[in-house]
Amino acid sequence: MHPTDSDCANAIRALAMDAVEAANSGHPGMPMGMADVATVLWQRYLKHDPADPHWPDRDRFILSAGHGSMLVYSLLHLSGYARPTLDDLKNFRQSDSPCAGHPENFMLEGIEATTGPLGQGFAMAVGFAIAERQLNATFDDALVDHKTWVIAGDGCLMEGINHEAVGLAGHLKLGRLNVLWDDNRITIDGAVSLSSSEDIPARYRASGWHVAECDGHDFDDIARAIDEALASDLPSLVRCRTIIGKGAPTKAGTSGSHGSPLGAKEIEGARAALGWAHEAFVVPDDIRQTWLAAGERSADDHAAWKQRLASHSDRAEFERRMAGTLPEGFSLDDYIAGLLADPKKVATRKASEMALEALTAALPETIGGSADLTGSNNTRTKATGPLNAENYGGRYVSYGIREFGMAAAMNGMALHGGVIPYGGTFLVFADYCRPAIRLSALQNTRVVYVMTHDSIGLGEDGPTHQPIEHLTSLRLIPGLDVYRPCDTIETAECWQLSVERSDGPSLLALSRQNLPQLRTEAAENWSARGAYRLQAAEAPRRVVLIATGSEVEIAVAVRAALEADGIGADVVSMPCWSRFDAQPADYRNDVLPHAKPEELLRVSIEAGTTLGWERYTTVDGLRFGIDRFGASGPAPELYAKFGLTPENITQAVKARLQATEN
Amino acid sequence: MHPTDSDCANAIRALAMDAVEAANSGHPGMPMGMADVATVLWQRYLKHDPADPHWPDRDRFILSAGHGSMLVYSLLHLSGYARPTLDDLKNFRQSDSPCAGHPENFMLEGIEATTGPLGQGFAMAVGFAIAERQLNATFDDALVDHKTWVIAGDGCLMEGINHEAVGLAGHLKLGRLNVLWDDNRITIDGAVSLSSSEDIPARYRASGWHVAECDGHDFDDIARAIDEALASDLPSLVRCRTIIGKGAPTKAGTSGSHGSPLGAKEIEGARAALGWAHEAFVVPDDIRQTWLAAGERSADDHAAWKQRLASHSDRAEFERRMAGTLPEGFSLDDYIAGLLADPKKVATRKASEMALEALTAALPETIGGSADLTGSNNTRTKATGPLNAENYGGRYVSYGIREFGMAAAMNGMALHGGVIPYGGTFLVFADYCRPAIRLSALQNTRVVYVMTHDSIGLGEDGPTHQPIEHLTSLRLIPGLDVYRPCDTIETAECWQLSVERSDGPSLLALSRQNLPQLRTEAAENWSARGAYRLQAAEAPRRVVLIATGSEVEIAVAVRAALEADGIGADVVSMPCWSRFDAQPADYRNDVLPHAKPEELLRVSIEAGTTLGWERYTTVDGLRFGIDRFGASGPAPELYAKFGLTPENITQAVKARLQATEN
Repeated sequence: MHPTDSDCANAIRALAMDAVEAANSGHPGMPMGMADVATVLWQRYLKHDPADPHWPDRDRFILSAGHGSMLVYSLLHLSGYARPTLDDLKNFRQSDSPCAGHPENFMLEGIEATTGPLGQGFAMAVGFAIAERQLNATFDDALVDHKTWVIAGDGCLMEGINHEAVGLAGHLKLGRLNVLWDDNRITIDGAVSLSSSEDIPARYRASGWHVAECDGHDFDDIARAIDEALASDLPSLVRCRTIIGKGAPTKAGTSGSHGSPLGAKEIEGARAALGWAHEAFVVPDDIRQTWLAAGERSADDHAAWKQRLASHSDRAEFERRMAGTLPEGFSLDDYIAGLLADPKKVATRKASEMALEALTAALPETIGGSADLTGSNNTRTKATGPLNAENYGGRYVSYGIREFGMAAAMNGMALHGGVIPYGGTFLVFADYCRPAIRLSALQNTRVVYVMTHDSIGLGEDGPTHQPIEHLTSLRLIPGLDVYRPCDTIETAECWQLSVERSDGPSLLALSRQNLPQLRTEAAENWSARGAYRLQAAEAPRRVVLIATGSEVEIAVAVRAALEADGIGADVVSMPCWSRFDAQPADYRNDVLPHAKPEELLRVSIEAGTTLGWERYTTVDGLRFGIDRFGASGPAPELYAKFGLTPENITQAVKARLQATEN
Repeated sequence: MHPTDSDCANAIRALAMDAVEAANSGHPGMPMGMADVATVLWQRYLKHDPADPHWPDRDRFILSAGHGSMLVYSLLHLSGYARPTLDDLKNFRQSDSPCAGHPENFMLEGIEATTGPLGQGFAMAVGFAIAERQLNATFDDALVDHKTWVIAGDGCLMEGINHEAVGLAGHLKLGRLNVLWDDNRITIDGAVSLSSSEDIPARYRASGWHVAECDGHDFDDIARAIDEALASDLPSLVRCRTIIGKGAPTKAGTSGSHGSPLGAKEIEGARAALGWAHEAFVVPDDIRQTWLAAGERSADDHAAWKQRLASHSDRAEFERRMAGTLPEGFSLDDYIAGLLADPKKVATRKASEMALEALTAALPETIGGSADLTGSNNTRTKATGPLNAENYGGRYVSYGIREFGMAAAMNGMALHGGVIPYGGTFLVFADYCRPAIRLSALQNTRVVYVMTHDSIGLGEDGPTHQPIEHLTSLRLIPGLDVYRPCDTIETAECWQLSVERSDGPSLLALSRQNLPQLRTEAAENWSARGAYRLQAAEAPRRVVLIATGSEVEIAVAVRAALEADGIGADVVSMPCWSRFDAQPADYRNDVLPHAKPEELLRVSIEAGTTLGWERYTTVDGLRFGIDRFGASGPAPELYAKFGLTPENITQAVKARLQATEN
């Protein structure tokens, strides 16, 4: 007898409860509850080819409810992906297993996005869907014509970011985005009704979505609802009424099945209830064959697509973009040469715009945007016309007042491939999208954050808008390159480095206020070194002044004052800590020489918290910064208030030098 | 002729445009657009007494769209508050003016909350409304019977946190919360339609809100809509259709009036259009008198309330709570004595629950909660029964999967006064509520964050759930006390310090895994010192081991191994950096003695990023930590993988000592 849909779904349930049991940790409830829905989706709708997880025109599947990772691991395994193997499943949640606690895109092919932090998978899916439409408009149906599927739980829908994602997707009419909502009425603490009384379908309709509903345990009804979703031009939410932990005799329908192993007895009962008479981790051949056959469903589509690509006039460009390779010979050298010939005193946010004009003209894959601060972030260029529901081929997204939604969407766009997203907000609002910045770094996505108004230099808007702890708090995120350029040249260099880096995110912290062009040569991209000697001491060197961004100008003035008194001082511009830390020791020791503090005083100047600067100044050095919240007032007065003036710093440095001599 | 409503509203418009012009920066559009609505609210509805901004039973007014700060400054000034004076208004946005760029609760009485970071004022208002209902249920209508009013803009409604706030308020049926939405169809980048297509009233209705609508420039229609809102038992959104910058001849209705001075010519035109024939900053006496009379409207109510309080049987307790004073003699000393007599090896999250049992029993003002992780955060106690729409007198809020909404609500509760909120989530999700944690610190609110699963020690859930950079990124926030206790005793001490601190927030980072009780005496609250010598060297001291939380156990084991080899080592437990930094130099130098590294090696051990630890180890010390993302696997294997074992650390310390000797 041919295996039924139920048999196929029960294979997922069995693998999920067995793997969680073997790991003695994990989340069986969600995979068991959504096994039926997932079976219909993967066996009847999802366009994919397990033989080539990187097929550019595959549908994207994102398990936003990432704690239910055994669902997607089971689906990948059963559908015929090379990994996870059965042994991988048996090693679920063990060290170095590709079957990590939550799905990780860097551990396993077929995992499109790293999920677990609730709401972000869904919000990244919006970015996948934007990228698909943008590439479709840029190329054509022959090359780009796929869908984005999401499985999301109540947690994903309750998180604030869901509102931003839903609003953005509805506004952009992303009809190829379909979200299957695991409506099991259970959260960790108990019934959803403990904390929510929302009419979710009504909310989605209010934001321009189509909402379909189904019994999540009736295969035909599931298919009917998905068909309904596909027929709609709007993004669709498919409400799947399910029972969490379905099959577990006493724990099904309760939060007891959510986040811990069912236990041997409950599993035995589930096997009986499901009619699954197989040993742990055993999937009968006929069921395996049915799953494998389903996994081969799109092989012909894939072959036809390859043929279309082979003869396509845009093949080279399409392949270049999907590979994430920049156009041959891309550089900003000409633009930088122009700056050297004709120096500009502008804010680095303006310098960023100038660099972006050159960069976006040369890189058609860049997609810009801002969280409603376009005129402040200076993120729009001539090359980046509006991307909206009327024109998906545009290159500038009006993300609205949705910093977190923007950042997550950019992650999704980068993960989709073929585009390089950048987006702007104020640096202080890095906090609003910090969880997505972290996921950019963890997922190794090429996303560029353009964060302007990067200090008290923004002035009157006051402490709510003045970043203080932000620079260093962002530097703490592993894998994120935080740049704070000091002038037009460094800004261009940092932009070049940001787009050239294909394995992770970059963040540019940019000034509101004008800054002089301090660099007078550009034989090398010095920003790539993270820090470099901008000016060398002329008098015998007693001081190294280390500064970033807008404070390099101050360091230069301090140096001039010291040199005038015969005190030699280097100025080191340090646009990127992480890049400097990665330099060879010789280079680092040359820029920041080892010496006793009484011989060489290291001084840092940055309009932010001083914690962390000890790494570069040593504890015995001097650190000028701001270890409290800012204040409202004109920027020059604030710099004076917080002691960040050449006069104050020069005096303090001299006092320290004298004290050391005594 | 008696001044009209229009005259009163135009006084606001004139002050707003004049102050922004004088400051040469600021946001005139919103105050001018909402002047009519605000006039109706403040002259006819708002219960307040300018003579006593701290009257506990006043209505609370929160300007969530904080950039329109001149609206509330004008309202306070015109209504008769002692500050801002006319001179204060003339000094809008100048250094040390109480009229800062955005409203700041610590600069001016009558400003209930610091706003500007969009969406948070609204979300804090939910907390104000929760506190009001809780205190009403705890005391009675005689003492607590007021409303919470919000003015919010499109930005506040588009931010993700709005979804969380709306969902929470709707679920809790906070009928005394009324939000006046400035529906001007404009954002900074242009028309709202550039980025949003949402049917906002439908969304609010879907979340259990009542929605009223009015012409925001028709005084009677505004009053009608507010009456409709007041008549509803549900929280209400009043959609006020307005024209941004109303009165400005060319900029009204455009984003051009949003965020910059109108300019002399436009102001002249606005004066003509509004029929406002007065010089800059001049408000005619009759209009002033009308405003002052409106400000005195609730004086009788206030007097009657004082009489009720004077004779109220709960007067002392009510006054104690509103003053934020803890009950006389409150301490956890008895509980701690019990621990010393009967040591417990438990996770610090469990130790926190144990401390909370004693603490919540002694402090009826504490209101607990969790963002749907109650069983993991261990935040619920016997004393804290559910606070919900059926019982506002409860003391435990099921916040749902709404970390940011929870944190903002806690800020609002603390700002309201009379309650001490604490709430839990996983430490990694501090990122989700970081903008509100920052506002806790900036606003000096007594909020306690209970953040469990504080390291790779959580194990299998993997890198998405393992905090790495979080401890130090939180330590960077000025004014936030971050605690990472190592055992039951320190956990109790840190809880005591957290509730005793009335001028700012505290955050407890707590382990998932069990930890031994290391403290054997509690003659003093050593955690109050931030760091202290837990174990002193026996052999001649060569090493100081500094550790926090779960890694103190490792430091103790390293010490034992070193001592066994005749190498003297102190163990310093450092539960709170900020408290240690605030100690006198003598104390700090005693705990971390100055010495050359070859004489005394300082070593830090913490399962997080090492950046920042240079402050305590010096650059020449050793830092054991994790400068990459974590991984999925059993916790002990992860500790080994990242080198955080006594064996590895002992070996490395010895190697360093030997290298130094050579």
